[in-house]
Amino acid sequence: MSKTPLTVEQIYTLAYDCLRANGCDDANAAATAKTVSTAERDGSESHGLYRLPGYVASLRSGKVAGNAVPTVEQVTPAAIRLDGNNGMAPLALEVGIPVLAEAAKALGIAVLAIRKSHHFAALWPETEALAEQGLVGIACTAHTPMVAPYGAKKAFFSTNPISFAWPRPGKDPYVFDMATAAKAHGDVGIAARDGHPLEPGIGLDAEGNPTTDAAAVLNGGVILPFGGYKGSAIATMIELLSAGLVGDHFSYEAGEADNKDGGPAQGGQLIIALSPKLIAGDDWGAHSEGFLSRLENMDGIRMPGKRRHQNRLSTEPRFIKTELVEKIRSLT
Amino acid sequence: MSKTPLTVEQIYTLAYDCLRANGCDDANAAATAKTVSTAERDGSESHGLYRLPGYVASLRSGKVAGNAVPTVEQVTPAAIRLDGNNGMAPLALEVGIPVLAEAAKALGIAVLAIRKSHHFAALWPETEALAEQGLVGIACTAHTPMVAPYGAKKAFFSTNPISFAWPRPGKDPYVFDMATAAKAHGDVGIAARDGHPLEPGIGLDAEGNPTTDAAAVLNGGVILPFGGYKGSAIATMIELLSAGLVGDHFSYEAGEADNKDGGPAQGGQLIIALSPKLIAGDDWGAHSEGFLSRLENMDGIRMPGKRRHQNRLSTEPRFIKTELVEKIRSLT
Repeated sequence: MSKTPLTVEQIYTLAYDCLRANGCDDANAAATAKTVSTAERDGSESHGLYRLPGYVASLRSGKVAGNAVPTVEQVTPAAIRLDGNNGMAPLALEVGIPVLAEAAKALGIAVLAIRKSHHFAALWPETEALAEQGLVGIACTAHTPMVAPYGAKKAFFSTNPISFAWPRPGKDPYVFDMATAAKAHGDVGIAARDGHPLEPGIGLDAEGNPTTDAAAVLNGGVILPFGGYKGSAIATMIELLSAGLVGDHFSYEAGEADNKDGGPAQGGQLIIALSPKLIAGDDWGAHSEGFLSRLENMDGIRMPGKRRHQNRLSTEPRFIKTELVEKIRSLT
Repeated sequence: MSKTPLTVEQIYTLAYDCLRANGCDDANAAATAKTVSTAERDGSESHGLYRLPGYVASLRSGKVAGNAVPTVEQVTPAAIRLDGNNGMAPLALEVGIPVLAEAAKALGIAVLAIRKSHHFAALWPETEALAEQGLVGIACTAHTPMVAPYGAKKAFFSTNPISFAWPRPGKDPYVFDMATAAKAHGDVGIAARDGHPLEPGIGLDAEGNPTTDAAAVLNGGVILPFGGYKGSAIATMIELLSAGLVGDHFSYEAGEADNKDGGPAQGGQLIIALSPKLIAGDDWGAHSEGFLSRLENMDGIRMPGKRRHQNRLSTEPRFIKTELVEKIRSLT
């Protein structure tokens, strides 16, 4: 498969220009292009330029407003509501994260409930942004139904990702960002596109039978939750936190409301920030390093996020599928 | 195996008298006996009277103070520290939960960090206590090493449970309480005691080989995390939240500090409470019921906590192993 070398800056510009050409104002195009280009910078193909045709489809269908201005409502000093006003999530996050961080630094804990936003990216940008300020970040969101609850054969949950970041002074944070599905939807999509089989236990076909065919999972089948009934319970918690607690669509509601243009559904996102300095006290950094350094030095351990942080350091071009680059250029 | 019928009140009295005879003051004996008897009421054998000999061992060894008076420190209006002063967790929770609930009702979110406490019970009592007040509860804790991180063969995590409760007006809450180990330590202990085999994937023996022998897992082996690397990431988060953020022992530290008397190690616990009424608004109840009622009516679904809530309704005696009843009486 032919690939095109692009620097992170070139990826940003490719995304920015494409978004501007499809109705985004400068602020929305810049925030979303940054999200897309940092995903490619970190080696996350499934959340990089791969997402751009979907964003464009939703801008063109009118589902997403390219000129949305997010508005903040401070419900209490610790609880912040943010209305995305039907825009893409990156700008909403750019507005909301600093307000959340400020509240958590003052009160030890704070929550940001984002409504009427269209999230189509990874969650680590928001939790890492908090960790960079010495805060613990927990973020979760919902989308449209793709995952069967444990025991069931029909899609009801989305892949319901959760990200957690713990700050490590002077180091990259400990961070994970994972679908509570056995496999992220973007990765199933890439397997289907490339004709690669799935591992067993990832999905069911349209008849409810186990399958390793990614296309069968996407065409009327379902993804399974990770970790059986326990993973299914975590997914339920994420639905309740990112929809019930936020006051926006559960996955089943987002699926009913969505116009199926291939872009991001409207939904909510919940982010909690906590201050280890305030809650644990000044020793928190050395104390948690004792744990994390022992963990990462155990035989057989791979720390989540590590490969991404290593990829980030490279100043070399990233290799993007030429077909995708050409498709995005054709949309500009 | 011979069993003895005891009413919930008789179970409470058996536990209370035994704790009083072993150095507990009235407040600590009453709180802990309530925790033990409500576990038996709900059919949770592994957190009921089964725990009492361990409590007694720790009171007798002097590890746990039977007359501890928990002290509350309001770090900020939203962040509360609670020092268990080396006592058992039930009294600390009785003191801390109302302060946490008050803060969450005022601010939308609040956190309770419990230190120097000895937790030896389920976590649902604390999250359900919050749900009874219309709040969402999230609780997690750590203990001593029993679980190998994904990829490793040595114990480093404890079974690191997490409980989540979502209030359902007029109904029992949606609540789960699960070890992030593939199986709870108490349940592995009961399988070993009764000579029952474990399911595959639960544990490794002392040589790091997979085994279904519960005794081999407990004697030098390790339990595995649920859900592979994703479950292991959740367990890491729980270590960081309940030890790093609280400022008390990580599991590896608790293991080093513990006197191995068979009772609960000293450790921390983190509890977060959130107000759906404040964050989502007045519609939160009907909105989340739309989700939960669809979920529980899907084919093949079993809701967590449901069996426990059904057991709770019975006014009949509970059947306790006679050997255990006699052992507890001999400790009184």
